Amino acid sequence: MADEFKNIGLIGRYRGMGTGVVNTLQALAEYLDKRQHKVFLDLEAAKEMQTQHYPALSLTELGKQCDLIIVVGGDGSLLNAARCAAPFGKAVLGINRGRLGFLTDIHPDHLEEKVEQVLQGNYITESRFLLSTTLEADGKMMQLDNALNDVVLMPGDIPHMIEFMITVNDQFVCKQRADGLIITTPTGSTAYALSGGGPILHPKLDAIALVPMFPHTLSSRPVVIASDSNIEIFITKNNECSPRLSCDGHKRVTIPANSKLHIKKYEKPLTLIHLKDYNYFETLRTKLGWEQHH
Amino acid sequence: MADEFKNIGLIGRYRGMGTGVVNTLQALAEYLDKRQHKVFLDLEAAKEMQTQHYPALSLTELGKQCDLIIVVGGDGSLLNAARCAAPFGKAVLGINRGRLGFLTDIHPDHLEEKVEQVLQGNYITESRFLLSTTLEADGKMMQLDNALNDVVLMPGDIPHMIEFMITVNDQFVCKQRADGLIITTPTGSTAYALSGGGPILHPKLDAIALVPMFPHTLSSRPVVIASDSNIEIFITKNNECSPRLSCDGHKRVTIPANSKLHIKKYEKPLTLIHLKDYNYFETLRTKLGWEQHH
Amino acid sequence: MADEFKNIGLIGRYRGMGTGVVNTLQALAEYLDKRQHKVFLDLEAAKEMQTQHYPALSLTELGKQCDLIIVVGGDGSLLNAARCAAPFGKAVLGINRGRLGFLTDIHPDHLEEKVEQVLQGNYITESRFLLSTTLEADGKMMQLDNALNDVVLMPGDIPHMIEFMITVNDQFVCKQRADGLIITTPTGSTAYALSGGGPILHPKLDAIALVPMFPHTLSSRPVVIASDSNIEIFITKNNECSPRLSCDGHKRVTIPANSKLHIKKYEKPLTLIHLKDYNYFETLRTKLGWEQHH
Amino acid sequence: MADEFKNIGLIGRYRGMGTGVVNTLQALAEYLDKRQHKVFLDLEAAKEMQTQHYPALSLTELGKQCDLIIVVGGDGSLLNAARCAAPFGKAVLGINRGRLGFLTDIHPDHLEEKVEQVLQGNYITESRFLLSTTLEADGKMMQLDNALNDVVLMPGDIPHMIEFMITVNDQFVCKQRADGLIITTPTGSTAYALSGGGPILHPKLDAIALVPMFPHTLSSRPVVIASDSNIEIFITKNNECSPRLSCDGHKRVTIPANSKLHIKKYEKPLTLIHLKDYNYFETLRTKLGWEQHH
Repeated sequence: MADEFKNIGLIGRYRGMGTGVVNTLQALAEYLDKRQHKVFLDLEAAKEMQTQHYPALSLTELGKQCDLIIVVGGDGSLLNAARCAAPFGKAVLGINRGRLGFLTDIHPDHLEEKVEQVLQGNYITESRFLLSTTLEADGKMMQLDNALNDVVLMPGDIPHMIEFMITVNDQFVCKQRADGLIITTPTGSTAYALSGGGPILHPKLDAIALVPMFPHTLSSRPVVIASDSNIEIFITKNNECSPRLSCDGHKRVTIPANSKLHIKKYEKPLTLIHLKDYNYFETLRTKLGWEQHH
Repeated sequence: MADEFKNIGLIGRYRGMGTGVVNTLQALAEYLDKRQHKVFLDLEAAKEMQTQHYPALSLTELGKQCDLIIVVGGDGSLLNAARCAAPFGKAVLGINRGRLGFLTDIHPDHLEEKVEQVLQGNYITESRFLLSTTLEADGKMMQLDNALNDVVLMPGDIPHMIEFMITVNDQFVCKQRADGLIITTPTGSTAYALSGGGPILHPKLDAIALVPMFPHTLSSRPVVIASDSNIEIFITKNNECSPRLSCDGHKRVTIPANSKLHIKKYEKPLTLIHLKDYNYFETLRTKLGWEQHH
Repeated sequence: MADEFKNIGLIGRYRGMGTGVVNTLQALAEYLDKRQHKVFLDLEAAKEMQTQHYPALSLTELGKQCDLIIVVGGDGSLLNAARCAAPFGKAVLGINRGRLGFLTDIHPDHLEEKVEQVLQGNYITESRFLLSTTLEADGKMMQLDNALNDVVLMPGDIPHMIEFMITVNDQFVCKQRADGLIITTPTGSTAYALSGGGPILHPKLDAIALVPMFPHTLSSRPVVIASDSNIEIFITKNNECSPRLSCDGHKRVTIPANSKLHIKKYEKPLTLIHLKDYNYFETLRTKLGWEQHH
Repeated sequence: MADEFKNIGLIGRYRGMGTGVVNTLQALAEYLDKRQHKVFLDLEAAKEMQTQHYPALSLTELGKQCDLIIVVGGDGSLLNAARCAAPFGKAVLGINRGRLGFLTDIHPDHLEEKVEQVLQGNYITESRFLLSTTLEADGKMMQLDNALNDVVLMPGDIPHMIEFMITVNDQFVCKQRADGLIITTPTGSTAYALSGGGPILHPKLDAIALVPMFPHTLSSRPVVIASDSNIEIFITKNNECSPRLSCDGHKRVTIPANSKLHIKKYEKPLTLIHLKDYNYFETLRTKLGWEQHH
């Protein structure tokens, strides 16, 4: 059988993860190598594994050259992989480090057996969308990072409130004073936005939620809009202190007063690979503790 | 010009509304009559107006025979009209009684002028979906009322908690003990569900929100799913007291233990008519008091 | 050593509890009998145990004649005992049926050993206050049940909103339209009120929380006031359907429109007995699942 | 009549306040001067008023030397005055700039008339408590600013979660991972903590609320404890990035990992002066928009 995944990239996460990730990556690389796949490592993985046996590539090159990207770590690691894989239409498989993730839903026990299933075509795919953000300031447009989870507008220096105005498809929604605003995909709706009182959006829902953070107006509520909406957030002149923006909790960009953010669905979706027994609601119940009885 | 709305039905609401509604209906009927439309009244309107000049019909017959239904009252009155108009694909126009509604968004001042705009074709239409509910009990299926806003499962005798299980597209979501559950359309998301902590769903979003009422499990959260989902709610045997169901706050049906509710999008949408300056977010800001500054 | 608890009353709860409660009560009665205490049973316990060996009394007589009341069951059973014990200044000890309660905090394993500790004076006491409610209607005053947890005003027929006005110490607080209102003690703050978004009030705090249920005004919030406040709730004439009142979820009294509820701290506190290792916050962490890590 | 307030200090706030504050201060100073009071200005007021006619003092000296401090501005300005007045047992009167504050409850219209009432003894006083915070790090104790509203623990660099453990009176409450924690007095309960989902604590309630900010554990809830509690917050070693602390939103102090915060009621209360028609709940209704009807 001709596998569809010839070139496979491996990505790990190491900070605070112990030696388990390195061991798992090592075993996985050897297994794939034996199976005649071409194995690539991300730079950090190569360094941690102290090996030169497999070519090491930047995340972007991994996205470009691999047919499948396997992430070993937590949901945070998969967010990084997603931003690289999506532009090239590549699939991503997430393996957790013993604690179930929303995105890294494969437990490392009996790992070869599970990966074998995937390589033999016994898997399901799921399409998730990312958010694309452009900053318009001083007449210039600047493309920011894509986000699989969320784009978070937050104070440059807490506890300063931010003042901003939201429009959706050129319709004015509201002017808010708040600690910030979370713009979340369904994928991100079970991450940071959930702590902030946002609703859970099913992954198959084409929707984006706007979740105000500690809004001054007590009747403010999360608003859910269609995912093909054009969202604009205008940072008013009244901000003494420049707010900042974070895409997937990753980078923080300073957003000057009197500038505008354009946020919309990124044109290329991420393909997530799951085993056939994947069940979104089961993950939800486990992660949110819906099954404990006290 | 040949008007598309030849037969026009008028519906009013009287309880707690004062004489204003009758006067508005009277003026509206005369104006439409003069304009050569055939005017029909709902039975209650005819009674309140003490007139036999216009044929009086049941709500269902109004839906069948009229090309346009004009509602004078509050959002509650429009809910009734919607359930009758939607099955026959007829359009509904809502006139409030001086206080802006989400659905009755036309203020009664300069009413003839505004209705004239509509009759001349200067209007926009908006499609809203309803929920269709079937009760499966003792092997029998029983069709319940459609709902434009929400289907609410609630205790038969408060303060008894209800125990129920939710599945979506045959996937088990969770088992809950709670005061009840609100299943809301985008239209209903700014009504009862909003008081219960549900998110605001934009009317153009094809989504349904499941909002638990006073859930025993504190990590329960509203879940938003695609509007084409098949929702099943199984009322477990553990309910000492039969829960009840309300569609648009209208009728209360007793739901026996060990029965199942099937809820899905009703196949025929409601067509709402708005003036050209209609703006959903403006209504939101006004109704939720987002523009006061204290 | 002369025990201070000569006469001991036993109360159980049976509905949905299995035979465990009866067995525990039986063992407890024999143990106390051997230890020369005079044992009394509540009427339901006597019936369930099918014994005439111990005198059976009403709950009120138990409160009057016993020095200590031991409850076997859940928190709900202890609420009943509390209403009888508090007027006579008697202490209450709560034994759960295997699942930790906030009030029934003694696990039935090694029960004799634990009860022995209490009877030898190795225990701590805790004072909890109850709420006293008087209904003023048609010029008459009617005393309602005391409540250790909460007094809940709720619709007579859901989903009808209730309209009411709150005053505290003769100061007008607000007029609300809501599904209802929970008036909770610190003891009740971890029960129904918590599902309704109320704060956790530490048992040593002399405070009462007013928690609106699904309030129409979205900026409504729980309000916490001193426990020596006089609370009045006026049910306005605008209620089509008479609301109802529940004290500790126990009885439902119809509250006519145009009547007034007077709620204040009951003058006699309840004395709860705990083992020396009792820890409120540990119970909280366990019951609310604060220690799971997902 | 011998006035009890001989020496009166004036404090204003200028940023974003327009010239109104200066004019009001000027008029107030002249009026008090005429009335034979000794008038002092805070340094910023003196600078803004461009006058040397009245002695200018630091906030601390104002607290020491004046019998009454009058604040013209918003609640934020009064917070500053409170921290200076409380240690010396001096009273504070708050005048707003046209928009009602919770603390600055006197409207500037007919100001002389209102101040005259106060100076003639026609006023009521209200006692509010402050929070005292000590940082214990590296074996050293460091006293931080007092806070009339709140002490807020927050990330040093958002969006990093903080990990901390709370104990109350040496009892372990919980370990939390969250964006932060608000420790609020009743005074602060209608400020930042309210946006964060905290309850409203009546000013006469001797209570402190602990309000988690965006807690990772979804069943976390605000906890209200007695105001004489000793609160300790231990910042665990697991914090990659040092959190910060803000007292009344004023200063931000970096809190190193592995350090401890000791927070308790400050021993000296603040005396607030109100006109005789002061009504807390009226302020609440106005500020929170409880009286609008949509």
